[in-house]
Amino acid sequence: MKIAVLPGDGIGTEIVAEAVRVLEVLDLKFEMETALVGGVAYDAHGHPLPEATLKLAKEADAILFGAVGDWKYDKLERQFRPEQAILGLRKNLGLFANFRPAICYEQLTHASSLKPELVSGLDILIIRELTGDIYFGQPRGRRSSPDGHFPGAEEAFDTMRYSRPEIERIAHVAFQAARKRNKRVTSVDKANVLETFQLWKDVVTEVGQQYPDVKLDHMYVDNAAMQLVKQPKYFDVVVTGNMFGDILSDEAAMLTGSIGMLPSASLNAGNQGLYEPSHGSAPDIAGKGVANPLATILSAAMMLRFSLNQPQAADRIESAVQDVLAQGLRTADIYSDGTTKVGTRAMGDAVVAAI
Amino acid sequence: MKIAVLPGDGIGTEIVAEAVRVLEVLDLKFEMETALVGGVAYDAHGHPLPEATLKLAKEADAILFGAVGDWKYDKLERQFRPEQAILGLRKNLGLFANFRPAICYEQLTHASSLKPELVSGLDILIIRELTGDIYFGQPRGRRSSPDGHFPGAEEAFDTMRYSRPEIERIAHVAFQAARKRNKRVTSVDKANVLETFQLWKDVVTEVGQQYPDVKLDHMYVDNAAMQLVKQPKYFDVVVTGNMFGDILSDEAAMLTGSIGMLPSASLNAGNQGLYEPSHGSAPDIAGKGVANPLATILSAAMMLRFSLNQPQAADRIESAVQDVLAQGLRTADIYSDGTTKVGTRAMGDAVVAAI
Ligand SMILES: CC(C)[C@H](C(=O)O)[C@@H](O)C(=O)O
Ligand SMILES: CC(C)[C@H](C(=O)O)[C@@H](O)C(=O)O
Repeated sequence: MKIAVLPGDGIGTEIVAEAVRVLEVLDLKFEMETALVGGVAYDAHGHPLPEATLKLAKEADAILFGAVGDWKYDKLERQFRPEQAILGLRKNLGLFANFRPAICYEQLTHASSLKPELVSGLDILIIRELTGDIYFGQPRGRRSSPDGHFPGAEEAFDTMRYSRPEIERIAHVAFQAARKRNKRVTSVDKANVLETFQLWKDVVTEVGQQYPDVKLDHMYVDNAAMQLVKQPKYFDVVVTGNMFGDILSDEAAMLTGSIGMLPSASLNAGNQGLYEPSHGSAPDIAGKGVANPLATILSAAMMLRFSLNQPQAADRIESAVQDVLAQGLRTADIYSDGTTKVGTRAMGDAVVAAI
Repeated sequence: MKIAVLPGDGIGTEIVAEAVRVLEVLDLKFEMETALVGGVAYDAHGHPLPEATLKLAKEADAILFGAVGDWKYDKLERQFRPEQAILGLRKNLGLFANFRPAICYEQLTHASSLKPELVSGLDILIIRELTGDIYFGQPRGRRSSPDGHFPGAEEAFDTMRYSRPEIERIAHVAFQAARKRNKRVTSVDKANVLETFQLWKDVVTEVGQQYPDVKLDHMYVDNAAMQLVKQPKYFDVVVTGNMFGDILSDEAAMLTGSIGMLPSASLNAGNQGLYEPSHGSAPDIAGKGVANPLATILSAAMMLRFSLNQPQAADRIESAVQDVLAQGLRTADIYSDGTTKVGTRAMGDAVVAAI
């Protein structure tokens, strides 16, 4: 078994280092190999996803990813910007199924913007399709407007697309995930306006008939954005497309108040996966040793469970994280009165010790 | 001056009736004419936006709109569903500028899902482009997939498009609105992924140079969905496209906790406008006399200010609404201990009396 370790930019190096230490202490049989990705890869090799990094990622059983991006790359042409690395990995590895849990840890409930009673015990799983939709749909570009309000004017365009088998496979992922949880799936669409999401709704409904034990409902994306605020605990599994999933998964993550705790997984049909924290590269605090490594450590746990077939090891990491929270250890992002503030390294130490 | 009154479905009739009474008591010189729209229009004439209704709307200086939609029309072909009426009005009247305030009334702060300190005094103005983007972009439809992951499979597609002049005109609306407020505009895009929103960002930046007194910043839509939850008071004016605006304006409305209080305006280049509450048709409480008419009454105030050039009359309505809140009158949706629960009609009576 081989893990590609891609720390990336900003706090990526620091947080991935802690996850790697946690993996090492478990003493399992796998190899880890590190490579550059994102802005640092562009600086070294002129491309955010160099050939060698892509090759390593393809050969690996799983990828442990930190974060990419920094203001200083904002002026680059789009194809050279750090985030193209993550889009390139998703596309080249066919990582179509993105798992984004939004969990509110009991000890961190107070950190949420929402009133505690609305988020305490919150546990949503957002399943976002990750290789289709308007993210990758061709054609796209700039041109002289062929018709519409201002014919002849400069115009930019993108294409939203989903095919039936693309929708079917992500729907199956959602229903199967729901079976292991509270057996409820909410499919989010905009079928009242978009052709793409009328097909989405039709196909999810059809696939749902194969899962009579799972309760399916449908919600328009604007309403979903509201209900997440109004009654987040309404949701169990949410399944949606790439664009809507981008927005709703971030909204849901922020509802918990502790985005520094939230892991994510992106899987392909062969269960090869990319694992990364839900938060970004936070260039403002990079190198200061204060970033929260727990989302990355929990991403490593997801990796053990989903791609490396080591569920017990995953459990050990997850209960170690619960232990350090119970001990009152907190990085700055989740610190509150009466708890003990620690840095990135000390938090990693504590998890290692708890294992 | 002529107002087209389109009550629509569900609670539409009840809430518009109260707004009409408020307008009448102001004793201004204008004519009002009522027509069917939405599901009730489909039932009567086989189309949610009958020719006669469209003609009336086009001839009027302003449209006072209730709400459309009911579960019972869900099975109709898309072109006959109630929401096509609102899309048809936007398109045919060129109502490209949608104003969606998200205001947290001091007396209703507790009704928010968010902690009071995060929303007290909240006053965001979301300006959503309303006649372009993927809502109306051609081509769109179903076909056999020409390429991509599953060539030959059934696929549905839509086109996201914006031309430079479409972006310019909505940007001007946003900067001008900001000048009357706190002089800050946040433009929301997804320029890191979409061609359309790279052009959006470029053009908004250019237009911004004509407003050196207004501070412009840019935010990705996923981040905006998060920051609305984390620090809603960060925002003053938000300007964005049709699709992102649909999602973010509803999220922001729900943050206030009192969507029953929020009006909206949709204007064209000639200041002809459609005015409607931000909430929907609420078929579950229709006909019971319990719906909150205040968002519709406040929409009538926006109409007087934006389309009918009667700012004093608008002020009178708005302070009357403040008065009834100060009197402790509340419809069921905003009721809390220690206040007086009233129905739709009684709330209308109170506003009329306060004027
Ligand atoms: C960096 C960006 C391209 C990416 C996306 O939009 O998918 C990010 O927001 C995410 O959610 O992983
Ligand atoms: C009813 C629907 C077509 C409409 C939209 O998506 O624009 C509604 O959600 C709105 O925001 O006015």
